[in-house]
Amino acid sequence: MERRYRLILACPDRVGIVAMVSNFISSHGGSITDANQHSDPSIGWFFMRVEIGAVMLPFELDALKKAFSPIAQSFEMQWRITDSSKPKRVVLMASRESHCLADLLYRFHSKELSCEIPCVISNHDDLRKMVEWHDIPYHHVPVDKDNKQPHFDKVTSLIKEYQADVIVLARYMQILPYELCDQYPQQVINIHHSFLPSFAGAKPYHQAHDRGVKLIGATCHYVTQDLDEGPIIDQDVIRISHRDQPEDMVRLGRDVEKNVLARGLRCHLEDRVLVHGNKTVVFN
Amino acid sequence: MERRYRLILACPDRVGIVAMVSNFISSHGGSITDANQHSDPSIGWFFMRVEIGAVMLPFELDALKKAFSPIAQSFEMQWRITDSSKPKRVVLMASRESHCLADLLYRFHSKELSCEIPCVISNHDDLRKMVEWHDIPYHHVPVDKDNKQPHFDKVTSLIKEYQADVIVLARYMQILPYELCDQYPQQVINIHHSFLPSFAGAKPYHQAHDRGVKLIGATCHYVTQDLDEGPIIDQDVIRISHRDQPEDMVRLGRDVEKNVLARGLRCHLEDRVLVHGNKTVVFN
Amino acid sequence: MERRYRLILACPDRVGIVAMVSNFISSHGGSITDANQHSDPSIGWFFMRVEIGAVMLPFELDALKKAFSPIAQSFEMQWRITDSSKPKRVVLMASRESHCLADLLYRFHSKELSCEIPCVISNHDDLRKMVEWHDIPYHHVPVDKDNKQPHFDKVTSLIKEYQADVIVLARYMQILPYELCDQYPQQVINIHHSFLPSFAGAKPYHQAHDRGVKLIGATCHYVTQDLDEGPIIDQDVIRISHRDQPEDMVRLGRDVEKNVLARGLRCHLEDRVLVHGNKTVVFN
Amino acid sequence: MERRYRLILACPDRVGIVAMVSNFISSHGGSITDANQHSDPSIGWFFMRVEIGAVMLPFELDALKKAFSPIAQSFEMQWRITDSSKPKRVVLMASRESHCLADLLYRFHSKELSCEIPCVISNHDDLRKMVEWHDIPYHHVPVDKDNKQPHFDKVTSLIKEYQADVIVLARYMQILPYELCDQYPQQVINIHHSFLPSFAGAKPYHQAHDRGVKLIGATCHYVTQDLDEGPIIDQDVIRISHRDQPEDMVRLGRDVEKNVLARGLRCHLEDRVLVHGNKTVVFN
Repeated sequence: MERRYRLILACPDRVGIVAMVSNFISSHGGSITDANQHSDPSIGWFFMRVEIGAVMLPFELDALKKAFSPIAQSFEMQWRITDSSKPKRVVLMASRESHCLADLLYRFHSKELSCEIPCVISNHDDLRKMVEWHDIPYHHVPVDKDNKQPHFDKVTSLIKEYQADVIVLARYMQILPYELCDQYPQQVINIHHSFLPSFAGAKPYHQAHDRGVKLIGATCHYVTQDLDEGPIIDQDVIRISHRDQPEDMVRLGRDVEKNVLARGLRCHLEDRVLVHGNKTVVFN
Repeated sequence: MERRYRLILACPDRVGIVAMVSNFISSHGGSITDANQHSDPSIGWFFMRVEIGAVMLPFELDALKKAFSPIAQSFEMQWRITDSSKPKRVVLMASRESHCLADLLYRFHSKELSCEIPCVISNHDDLRKMVEWHDIPYHHVPVDKDNKQPHFDKVTSLIKEYQADVIVLARYMQILPYELCDQYPQQVINIHHSFLPSFAGAKPYHQAHDRGVKLIGATCHYVTQDLDEGPIIDQDVIRISHRDQPEDMVRLGRDVEKNVLARGLRCHLEDRVLVHGNKTVVFN
Repeated sequence: MERRYRLILACPDRVGIVAMVSNFISSHGGSITDANQHSDPSIGWFFMRVEIGAVMLPFELDALKKAFSPIAQSFEMQWRITDSSKPKRVVLMASRESHCLADLLYRFHSKELSCEIPCVISNHDDLRKMVEWHDIPYHHVPVDKDNKQPHFDKVTSLIKEYQADVIVLARYMQILPYELCDQYPQQVINIHHSFLPSFAGAKPYHQAHDRGVKLIGATCHYVTQDLDEGPIIDQDVIRISHRDQPEDMVRLGRDVEKNVLARGLRCHLEDRVLVHGNKTVVFN
Repeated sequence: MERRYRLILACPDRVGIVAMVSNFISSHGGSITDANQHSDPSIGWFFMRVEIGAVMLPFELDALKKAFSPIAQSFEMQWRITDSSKPKRVVLMASRESHCLADLLYRFHSKELSCEIPCVISNHDDLRKMVEWHDIPYHHVPVDKDNKQPHFDKVTSLIKEYQADVIVLARYMQILPYELCDQYPQQVINIHHSFLPSFAGAKPYHQAHDRGVKLIGATCHYVTQDLDEGPIIDQDVIRISHRDQPEDMVRLGRDVEKNVLARGLRCHLEDRVLVHGNKTVVFN
């Protein structure tokens, strides 16, 4: 695909934002290849994502950012510009369950996901062979449940060393420490099962089975300090019946989980997700 | 449709149940036109629903029950037999919102639901015209929020007077008193919105909007003394996006609610729902 | 809702369209409350829909059109501007089946659809009572299958008399004559059942049953001279099983048909559907 | 899972089938752990699938078949009995596209599919590394498009050599010769894309894109001599929009294809699919 710059911005809504942005682009000869806008009247906020054909612009990425900066300032924008030719570096974290990891690796292998995967980190060694087949380094960082700090120190240092842009918790069953979440805001993506109604505590599929629910689902969200409560990127459900035992629900849940995680990650990689407070605008 | 008896039973699982039941039917010349069974190994319980061509059997309903009774006893069955030629009497209860009521009335009018609707009861008078167009009596029973007892006394007496087999809370926004729930176990059907995750308290659609959920849903369930916690009959969801304001979510939620309620009621009317503890087996 | 103008346009893609349009709006003090754009690289064409807060603009609708006209010309735009305060006039046409008609009437009655329904036309008299309950004139225009011209002459004259902006074929089982289709391009909306694979000829649900399909669906589309082949507005499916006899499939198909038609009409009424050649861009 | 026998039968419907079958089982001390029945009144035919706890029966598989044979004969049954402890041997056939193959291999690897995969056959060598990682033999059997007979001779001989019970065409892009289809009736499973409406000929996703369809789907079916026209096992669809270019549709279509194929194969492996004429009864 042709190289593109992606301008993502959010700011208080007022007259003239689109005009100013599109003038800026067209006055430099840039063509808008895709654009989405959203005004949320309930909060008076404006969101925009613009894809610009990079080849026609007289700017490199840094120069473009510098040129756009005054406009951004005058509208009090939260903004970023990314370059589609620089794929994001995605560090995958897993535990023992392989379904999400295997799915993401396959999509990466088949070039469906536009990213780099510099390494996989796991607190178990089980998935090494699967990962190394893709020529991706696998780091087994065991966790001592009475002293998790050394584990997280090592994880943090690996994430830094590999210069991660995104961290995907692909059924990594540990709660990330606050400091790590804070250092990577809106860059840590998690997947977890979801039910109607919700179930707290252990063995949620067994609880859902006992309750006789007819749908099970999954939610892909950014990780914040509130466990499983960060901004939602995507969700989906699958129909079940009384015939499905907890182990069937787990199996069906795996399919929903991996599909929702892959869709959510794809949106993130294409800079389609804008976060405002605890909710997202997803331009897809 | 040809007249049928429906035998619904649940009992501790053991060898020979199906043989005994099907022998009983075939030895009297009855043909099984539809049958479903389910064993739940986690609780060691067996569930069955059999449709029997009534015309070939030498029994009227009462005689059939009497003839089957010894088998039922020997297997410690919870059971019932119904007659498809005797449609259930469904009392609808509503408040001001019309979407579920209008949908059920239309399905009744177009003969899609096989039942009688002897009356509609509401704590408001708003929907009278819509109901009376269908030649169904409409009872406006106002509720005094400081003293609800007279309201429920009147409602209970109407339900008895009209000999209701089923009571459908079609967005009737009052909590039924315990005594009424107890008198009609597994006969009071409710519909309520559902989200992933769940939201407690007022204005759930606004809460869901603030949380940025991507799916909204509805749950149809039997009413028990635990509000909104009875056995689930059916559920469904619809996809929403950041573009949907709370009022859009309410509108989309109405479509899910009415469809799920209609499907749930249909299953109930055809005796397809078996309740065990707090969960259902739905043979559809 | 606050009054809005909606600008809908399509033109060959080139640099500066968004800038020009948004400049025009903001230079007159108008605020963009919603906007969607789409570039289709496979045809080199650009599509846009903009909602503008009408109260802030110094223009009435005609003056706005006049002011925008030079821009439209310079970009060779196909375009229109509509006024949300002037609801479209929707003439409904039906035959004997009531599900789509009843659903649209209910949504109109509950103010879910923003439109006027000046009359209903049918070749049968069956649905008169249902329509007249809504205080909408009902015109029974019988059709003689050996000479349909008088029927269509009368239908055409009613459509003109009632100044229809949109004609919805809500299970009107006649094929509209070419002349009528031509006079109302992209203004006649039809709903028809759809299957995977497709079935031609009579009794499609029976054909689908014989073929053992697992999904049945419906397609809402604009009517062109190619029967059932016009631009698609929306589609949906529902899952069925071997248990569903043709009559169950017809019943389930009704729910899909009415929901898809209502969604498609809603998009049309909000000017969210742009047609290019034989396909649509639906901004929802 | 505990060892089970599965009895699958179809026969002309008449009184006493279930009684006879369940008597047979219970009189030998067998317990029915799952059972499904279906009567299709439109063809007067009866279908049944029974799972029997094998450990309690005094029969090995062959003895059980022999014992049941007289009953089967008296009811003119088409029938089979399988043993859940003898997983079916599934030969996978692929070409260059890896999505279905990779998905099935992963499900096999994670023990989600209860089967053996004795080998993979492909007319290209591309997927060898992926297959051999699973320690499964990979046979590259090139096809000469002017003389396909040697290819099919080799394929047939491999299928026989590996004693295939099932052949899955996991995006194997060749049309199997008649003789091979005939030798493996209801044992060759294919997956192909499906649309509403259908599109014949090359580049179906491009045709669907040009037509502006809003849903794309996939159909899993048994292969018969009528290409893409055999009995349907499962189908599903996914929603698309005008934003999706043909390459997006291909990508989204891959997800539907692999999910539907995996579900269809799972049903087949568990003996849940009964074929009658050109349609299936799927007990799931």
